[in-house]
Amino acid sequence: MRILILGGDGYLGWATAMRFSNRGHEVHVVDNYLRRRAHEEAGTDSLIPILPSLPERVVAWKDVTGNDIGYIEGDLCDWQVTEPLFRDLHPDAVVHYGEQPSAPYSMKDREHAVFTQTNNVVNTLNVLWAIREHAPECHLVKLGTMGEYGTPNIDIEEGYLEITHNGRTDSLPFPKLPGSFYHLSKVHDSHNIHFACRVWGVRATDLNQGVVYGIETEETTLDPRLATRFDYDDVFGTALNRFCVEAVIGHPLTVYGKGGQTRGYLNIVDTLQCVELAVANPADAGEMRVYNQFTEQFSVVELADIVQKAGKEHGLDVEIDPIENPRFEMEEHYYNPKHQKLLDLGLEPQLLSDTLVESMFDRIGEHRHRVMEDHILPRDRWRA
Amino acid sequence: MRILILGGDGYLGWATAMRFSNRGHEVHVVDNYLRRRAHEEAGTDSLIPILPSLPERVVAWKDVTGNDIGYIEGDLCDWQVTEPLFRDLHPDAVVHYGEQPSAPYSMKDREHAVFTQTNNVVNTLNVLWAIREHAPECHLVKLGTMGEYGTPNIDIEEGYLEITHNGRTDSLPFPKLPGSFYHLSKVHDSHNIHFACRVWGVRATDLNQGVVYGIETEETTLDPRLATRFDYDDVFGTALNRFCVEAVIGHPLTVYGKGGQTRGYLNIVDTLQCVELAVANPADAGEMRVYNQFTEQFSVVELADIVQKAGKEHGLDVEIDPIENPRFEMEEHYYNPKHQKLLDLGLEPQLLSDTLVESMFDRIGEHRHRVMEDHILPRDRWRA
Repeated sequence: MRILILGGDGYLGWATAMRFSNRGHEVHVVDNYLRRRAHEEAGTDSLIPILPSLPERVVAWKDVTGNDIGYIEGDLCDWQVTEPLFRDLHPDAVVHYGEQPSAPYSMKDREHAVFTQTNNVVNTLNVLWAIREHAPECHLVKLGTMGEYGTPNIDIEEGYLEITHNGRTDSLPFPKLPGSFYHLSKVHDSHNIHFACRVWGVRATDLNQGVVYGIETEETTLDPRLATRFDYDDVFGTALNRFCVEAVIGHPLTVYGKGGQTRGYLNIVDTLQCVELAVANPADAGEMRVYNQFTEQFSVVELADIVQKAGKEHGLDVEIDPIENPRFEMEEHYYNPKHQKLLDLGLEPQLLSDTLVESMFDRIGEHRHRVMEDHILPRDRWRA
Repeated sequence: MRILILGGDGYLGWATAMRFSNRGHEVHVVDNYLRRRAHEEAGTDSLIPILPSLPERVVAWKDVTGNDIGYIEGDLCDWQVTEPLFRDLHPDAVVHYGEQPSAPYSMKDREHAVFTQTNNVVNTLNVLWAIREHAPECHLVKLGTMGEYGTPNIDIEEGYLEITHNGRTDSLPFPKLPGSFYHLSKVHDSHNIHFACRVWGVRATDLNQGVVYGIETEETTLDPRLATRFDYDDVFGTALNRFCVEAVIGHPLTVYGKGGQTRGYLNIVDTLQCVELAVANPADAGEMRVYNQFTEQFSVVELADIVQKAGKEHGLDVEIDPIENPRFEMEEHYYNPKHQKLLDLGLEPQLLSDTLVESMFDRIGEHRHRVMEDHILPRDRWRA
């Protein structure tokens, strides 16, 4: 298949590109280096060193595997970039990671909120119009987030809910309670994509992903030059990855608030499995499938305990030090999201284990001199 | 009260500004003349002549009533415009009509879709941030649309739905099935506003309005210079207003498709009543109220029959000529939206009557020489 990876320079995008290329697909990646620029502005960086740009990455990939990956450096908000991708390449599938992906970034101030929503909504609209005009059979695999749902007091279904009300029944989009301007941008995308499927017959799969952890995939381990980025800072780092870094450098684990916040989690290798399964089993024309993409759920306190315990095995003395929660979120809540559809397609989860956490300690330890300790604590608060 | 009217040069915005000014409030209007420019580009115009800009309008208003209305010509997407409005004026209430309001406009092509969503989402984000930073007590009265809901197969509640699922219950935002990029932009706004209420304690009322008809209000009848605009063209005209123009000029009524599409409708004088009621009874801090703002519902065929019958009384020979539906919408469907909350606040509906339709015929007749007949039939189709 010919597969286009939007955001192909990112943590998951680059790993996904290598995976599909390794499986014999024709892969093209697109990125405008938004994440690299945001890091430069903040004075932060990936913990694991990565090659400086896509051209170097694809050369290294070719060198190691003999496979080609095409690359385009450009902004999908620019129609002069997006249109030719679909008009000239006619991809069979497009995997869309190409968005500003950080909730704290979107909550910094007005400019960051407006930028996040404009960037994410406009580039997805461009992708939809480009599919409509140039590649109507192309399957859009779009990365959403479990954070679109928030934490309602009912079971979370996969995208749709059968509702009976006053004696009548319909299957309707699951109501959303997103918790940041970033999460909102994904909700807006979901509505726009659903419309394009209904009206234009676009085929789409919306992967509402949980929090991803992990450093290595089959392909990153082939050569140090093939490493994918690994963020641990307050803006782009996520819970488990950040806790592992904290454990290694002897920083207390920064549990936000009571730590009862429960979310779905998955290993980066399962992200790749899920995306592969979605691409291999395309949606029907006019169908917008929604899959909840995670393998198990933990509260923040449970995660911290796992890291503390693995640290002990590993000879690390890990403290847990709850701090004021910068976010607006319930710290004790019901949480029971379904995640059956990807299992039905054949997903074989790699669950979180002490061994995995310890292997992360090892990889992080190799680069511990690169950790910037003053970029771990959150600086931006959600409330007015 | 000090009241800011965003989109104060429009069909409803100008009428609302005069109403509040007439009631003794301090009123400021803001507009960037987007609608006027869109008409110029399309070669169309308001049927009823209106003064060429806000400065002339407020001078005429002062001349007729002795009251002042402040005005600002500017784009709310520009923070340099939005911030000073809230920082310097500290409004008690802001009535937000300031958006691109046409579904066909948003469906013309990619540029119009992207413009509509960017314009509407960004200016509302700016308003929310300006309230947060400079006027946290200000009550945001935002015009949404009944079109956000689409036509689900269950009763439509006012903004929220109590859902019982697998034995647990929560009150959640009513699921949305919007039918154009314009309607989607209002859904995005609703989610963004809901978040600002939850996180920052903003007080907001989202008025999900039906299709407005009518030409006159108490204030427009005071002087011809105070007329508000009246659109009948394929882009900005709406069902009943357009049918009345067609009846007067002897054009067959352009029913789209089977005409079973049922929507909520209200008289422009009831729009003013509803907005007054919302402003006079502000939402609590942190509350986002949603009111469904219409007074009765009709199918397109029912509306056409009403216009045909009133035409007969009026000596007009009105034909009905269904045309291919340019939109993507169900032409036969269940429709039972609730609209109780504004009645509970004291709304006294002016229901549609033959007399009202005939008075519209008279006003349209005075300007029938201005009708551009080649701008009545729809030109833009929703489907790919």
